[in-house]
Amino acid sequence: MKPKRIGITTGGGDAPGLNAVIRAVVKTAAIDYGAEVIGIEDGFDGLLRAGGVHTLTPGDVRGILPRGGTILGTASRGNPFARKVVQPDGATRVVDMSDEVLAAIVALNLDALIVIGGDGTLRIALELKHKGCPVVGVPKTIDNDVGGTEVTFGFDTALNTATEAIDKLHTTAESHHRAMVVELMGRDAGFLALHAGVAGGADVILIPELPFLFESVCRKVCERASRGSKFSILAVAEGAHPKGEDPIYSIAGDEVRVARLGGIGTLVGRIIGERCQTETRVTVLGHVQRGGGPTPFDRWLATRYGAAAVRLAMRGGFGRMVALQYSTITDIPLEEALAVPKRVDLSSDGMLTARGLGICFGD
Amino acid sequence: MKPKRIGITTGGGDAPGLNAVIRAVVKTAAIDYGAEVIGIEDGFDGLLRAGGVHTLTPGDVRGILPRGGTILGTASRGNPFARKVVQPDGATRVVDMSDEVLAAIVALNLDALIVIGGDGTLRIALELKHKGCPVVGVPKTIDNDVGGTEVTFGFDTALNTATEAIDKLHTTAESHHRAMVVELMGRDAGFLALHAGVAGGADVILIPELPFLFESVCRKVCERASRGSKFSILAVAEGAHPKGEDPIYSIAGDEVRVARLGGIGTLVGRIIGERCQTETRVTVLGHVQRGGGPTPFDRWLATRYGAAAVRLAMRGGFGRMVALQYSTITDIPLEEALAVPKRVDLSSDGMLTARGLGICFGD
Amino acid sequence: MKPKRIGITTGGGDAPGLNAVIRAVVKTAAIDYGAEVIGIEDGFDGLLRAGGVHTLTPGDVRGILPRGGTILGTASRGNPFARKVVQPDGATRVVDMSDEVLAAIVALNLDALIVIGGDGTLRIALELKHKGCPVVGVPKTIDNDVGGTEVTFGFDTALNTATEAIDKLHTTAESHHRAMVVELMGRDAGFLALHAGVAGGADVILIPELPFLFESVCRKVCERASRGSKFSILAVAEGAHPKGEDPIYSIAGDEVRVARLGGIGTLVGRIIGERCQTETRVTVLGHVQRGGGPTPFDRWLATRYGAAAVRLAMRGGFGRMVALQYSTITDIPLEEALAVPKRVDLSSDGMLTARGLGICFGD
Amino acid sequence: MKPKRIGITTGGGDAPGLNAVIRAVVKTAAIDYGAEVIGIEDGFDGLLRAGGVHTLTPGDVRGILPRGGTILGTASRGNPFARKVVQPDGATRVVDMSDEVLAAIVALNLDALIVIGGDGTLRIALELKHKGCPVVGVPKTIDNDVGGTEVTFGFDTALNTATEAIDKLHTTAESHHRAMVVELMGRDAGFLALHAGVAGGADVILIPELPFLFESVCRKVCERASRGSKFSILAVAEGAHPKGEDPIYSIAGDEVRVARLGGIGTLVGRIIGERCQTETRVTVLGHVQRGGGPTPFDRWLATRYGAAAVRLAMRGGFGRMVALQYSTITDIPLEEALAVPKRVDLSSDGMLTARGLGICFGD
Repeated sequence: MKPKRIGITTGGGDAPGLNAVIRAVVKTAAIDYGAEVIGIEDGFDGLLRAGGVHTLTPGDVRGILPRGGTILGTASRGNPFARKVVQPDGATRVVDMSDEVLAAIVALNLDALIVIGGDGTLRIALELKHKGCPVVGVPKTIDNDVGGTEVTFGFDTALNTATEAIDKLHTTAESHHRAMVVELMGRDAGFLALHAGVAGGADVILIPELPFLFESVCRKVCERASRGSKFSILAVAEGAHPKGEDPIYSIAGDEVRVARLGGIGTLVGRIIGERCQTETRVTVLGHVQRGGGPTPFDRWLATRYGAAAVRLAMRGGFGRMVALQYSTITDIPLEEALAVPKRVDLSSDGMLTARGLGICFGD
Repeated sequence: MKPKRIGITTGGGDAPGLNAVIRAVVKTAAIDYGAEVIGIEDGFDGLLRAGGVHTLTPGDVRGILPRGGTILGTASRGNPFARKVVQPDGATRVVDMSDEVLAAIVALNLDALIVIGGDGTLRIALELKHKGCPVVGVPKTIDNDVGGTEVTFGFDTALNTATEAIDKLHTTAESHHRAMVVELMGRDAGFLALHAGVAGGADVILIPELPFLFESVCRKVCERASRGSKFSILAVAEGAHPKGEDPIYSIAGDEVRVARLGGIGTLVGRIIGERCQTETRVTVLGHVQRGGGPTPFDRWLATRYGAAAVRLAMRGGFGRMVALQYSTITDIPLEEALAVPKRVDLSSDGMLTARGLGICFGD
Repeated sequence: MKPKRIGITTGGGDAPGLNAVIRAVVKTAAIDYGAEVIGIEDGFDGLLRAGGVHTLTPGDVRGILPRGGTILGTASRGNPFARKVVQPDGATRVVDMSDEVLAAIVALNLDALIVIGGDGTLRIALELKHKGCPVVGVPKTIDNDVGGTEVTFGFDTALNTATEAIDKLHTTAESHHRAMVVELMGRDAGFLALHAGVAGGADVILIPELPFLFESVCRKVCERASRGSKFSILAVAEGAHPKGEDPIYSIAGDEVRVARLGGIGTLVGRIIGERCQTETRVTVLGHVQRGGGPTPFDRWLATRYGAAAVRLAMRGGFGRMVALQYSTITDIPLEEALAVPKRVDLSSDGMLTARGLGICFGD
Repeated sequence: MKPKRIGITTGGGDAPGLNAVIRAVVKTAAIDYGAEVIGIEDGFDGLLRAGGVHTLTPGDVRGILPRGGTILGTASRGNPFARKVVQPDGATRVVDMSDEVLAAIVALNLDALIVIGGDGTLRIALELKHKGCPVVGVPKTIDNDVGGTEVTFGFDTALNTATEAIDKLHTTAESHHRAMVVELMGRDAGFLALHAGVAGGADVILIPELPFLFESVCRKVCERASRGSKFSILAVAEGAHPKGEDPIYSIAGDEVRVARLGGIGTLVGRIIGERCQTETRVTVLGHVQRGGGPTPFDRWLATRYGAAAVRLAMRGGFGRMVALQYSTITDIPLEEALAVPKRVDLSSDGMLTARGLGICFGD
């Protein structure tokens, strides 16, 4: 029997396109299948408190397609299997609340639960599936690090924001003869720094997948200066790191570690500045990369994901995730998506292209 | 033996990303292979006149990555197999100049010729191949209508421009209670109208692949009004057309045909306005859709195409075209790319999604 | 005594920044003065129907600052002094409903009425003032044609949209060797075409204040071609017109008038194309120029206008309009604002600059 | 006698619109007056080295109108009255090279010298004037801190970049329940933080003109949380500072000063995070704010400034600066412009508006 009541929730970090998925789910369920959609607020937290769920009609999702954020809110640390609960005595204890979550789902009469999230949230969804919950997953990550799908929504929007910043640094770097460092998102995967770096014409790209040597980076910057190039642009993923342990760097007489300086971007800026005798400026884009309305690419993709998730639920494809393969939406087992985290393939045509253009990766 | 001198030319309509391809070709050839690149101006025309070719060094392509247009110029009607030549008496005659083109390529000592173009230009490239020219193709089309590749550069930029226009019409339509028609590019393929229509939340999408009935379109607009929606947005591909022959329409007492009114968008606007008794406004975006700097998506893709084209030439893969399949750059025979023109697949998940959202296609 | 209940309404054509004014009025009234704000829908129409007014709290205006359109809706033809009323027999009669409007204002206990609108709406506000209504005006026009104020919100946003379109045409015109015509808003005032034309580097600018000769325009386009320039950009205000009466033009054997072709832009395109033997493309931006979120300039200005309107009402400055003079918000009598419609000053430094750059105005 | 050869140079920090001024100067001089323009590279440095000057023709400035940066380069520390010169022994000495600069100007036969710059550069221009050089000034500052002119180019573009960043933080802050700090440019003047803060709907704005108390800032953030607002946005000018001396702050057991943490934004973020028990994220926009193509507002203004500077030179108005007053370009003595640095007027309608909306300035 086809689901009549579908729950939907968004978990983990924010990503442009979440609202587009929600809208597509609500409209497709209502218009195409006559089913009702129940929105659950703040990840799974909405199931554990009064007033945390409410019906979503097509009218409720009107106008949200081009908007960033999520009308449902998210809870970045809302794992119901390991939930931090404040005790009467003020201490915090970690409690397994998954049974309460399942009970709430049953009480709400949900025939299906669409979970939109990244690696962490989808892993929770899979565990709920093992406990009997009819989940369907939708991948979400601005880092592009979910496996089994070529790309997911949010990444293209973040790429636009990051590349636009590099473009702007370009014009001012040219006039000023400076080295410009921009720190981009990407704790474990360097897709954003790689794509934005190539699209923005960066000279150096540092990604988590390739630990770097300061020596190589500085050599590149100095070489450019000696060949008459007046500036250098360095795109640095927040998760990029020097080869070996985090050593102590001596900067202007002070001894510092990366953590102390507020990020790898700042460290790279200071060391380049000192060793290459060049004025250096650092931009830390931060959460600006998670914000803004989704690009048309992300809206188109997010809308297709949302509609496909409803169709998947209608077919009873629980424990599976919608995915993009060969430009078409398909679906795969959650286990498959979570088996291997996606990282930049160092032998991909993109990396080959970047190296062929003379971009330095510091390795 | 690997090519030492590579020619490059851009043909057909303009598309954002052409300069990114040119830059990648020049830099990859020079840095990775020590080869020289010769730029040919205005399609194949540059080979038929003095001063129409010149060496391109990495310095010559500095700064062109984010720029729209092509530094080489294009010639939309520059088929050397059927070239219009003005005779001494002022008359125009169609002449086969392909031998002259081949002779010029030989005289320039080109070991490879990279041809960036759409359907028409790639067909010429294939004919040149049959005559012995070592061509490598790079697909280019803002309509996304080249076969054998999932997508090509230019389309994403055009999609951004088109969707932004729909977004803007949305805000003003809401305030004004109007029907807004926007005519988009797409003479034979409706990808741009479909993607932009879905991404922009259009209510009606008309594409060349699906001849429409005015009756259905008007019914949709009227229904929305009667259900309390204060406005309707219609995304119309320039190649969309009513079912059957182009009939004569009676508008405000005048008898008109599509052609006379300056396009299908204007006709749709007038007929909706009259039959639905609603104020209607028409936007004709025109060549704005071909312009502007490429999006990061298009720059990343165009750069990879350019680099891959050089690698393909170095492998001696003449008569082939670089293509995107499964998120990876590969290459296919030009014949395969040209075998079947790409059109919107009416049973694709995108179409299914659009219909499930309640979008009207007028069929 | 200071007003305790303030009505607010938006009339006439849509302009980006209306929501920013509404938000500033509501927040300033509530936070700074403890006053209540009553939103009136669809111009003055909301006062003439049940359910057309409702209280606006700071919570109601949350998030609307960056949004285009107006949450109150507008009624472009909602003059209460001459309202079209459909009779029982189906015929339409024009009726003076101003007494009903005034009665509604009294019934609502409004101590002040903030009217946001252009020339037409502000004229109605003045008439209401003459009948005793405590109105305060806020100028609104994307054409920049309201007198007494240096500029008003909406214009900068429209200027951005128009200039961006010209920028995009530039890149594609360069590659294609074409004449590109873009028709911009401006029925009576040419500010938008003038500013966007100069900002976008247009070669020809046609504005309502300066009737043009086709001969001059064609001469400019031909001259450019003969001097080696490969393209021309023409920015044409929708209200631009040839000198003398609207003649009949012969195009490709057909006889046409401006009106028949759907606008002056299309006519200019066809005539240039025929007389200069050049490929010509026409873009009609239309209502895209009224849409989109306001620029930061417009948000800053609109917010200051809204706050100043509340302060003006608190001082009892009825019958006056807030205005920008010398970078500061001040206020002037509505009569003064409406005395002389604002037009492009043909001897201003802006016009002098444009002519000095060699831009052709067709005169 | 009217100048026949005009020098032009750009000094100090980069600002979007510099190229638009250069283009307007070159085109106006050539087309309107038949005069020649000589471009001087890197501030006054171009006059002190071989190959540092070259003729600029209209062809040389083609296409630079929409581009950021300056084709002439700048030298932020290029004061010819106090120039750092490296001695043969490697030591640096400060030397007065102004006579050499004047001699170069005479040798080049320049009848006028257009100097585009901020406070510092214009002060040098004034000193050169005192030594007999026929200078004309054009104000340039993205901080809007040059006196005598209502606004100058570059500011509007920086405002767009800053506001767009705040907009993006808004969407993600809403979903995540966080405090978001964005550090903006403005060492001495807070215009950018004030305008962007109001335009972006910030809750706290910290500017150099108003030293702040951490207590007030934290109270505002906590109050918002306690009233149910899920997030706070703080716009902080880089020159904002706590009342009193730079104290030592204890953060997570460490003792730090502002300078050590890499900026006031980071400090504000850490202290808010600790004292308000809220997750906090910091964005440091940095030189992104100086980059990018100029907005249409800035292009229109910069073009008018450039054309007006040529007209001023033609009238022999040396020692004066073009300025915008009452929406019109005029000119004032350089002394007047430099008399009092422009700062945010704490009793302006803008400040009044911001306070009336409930924005906290930490004072």
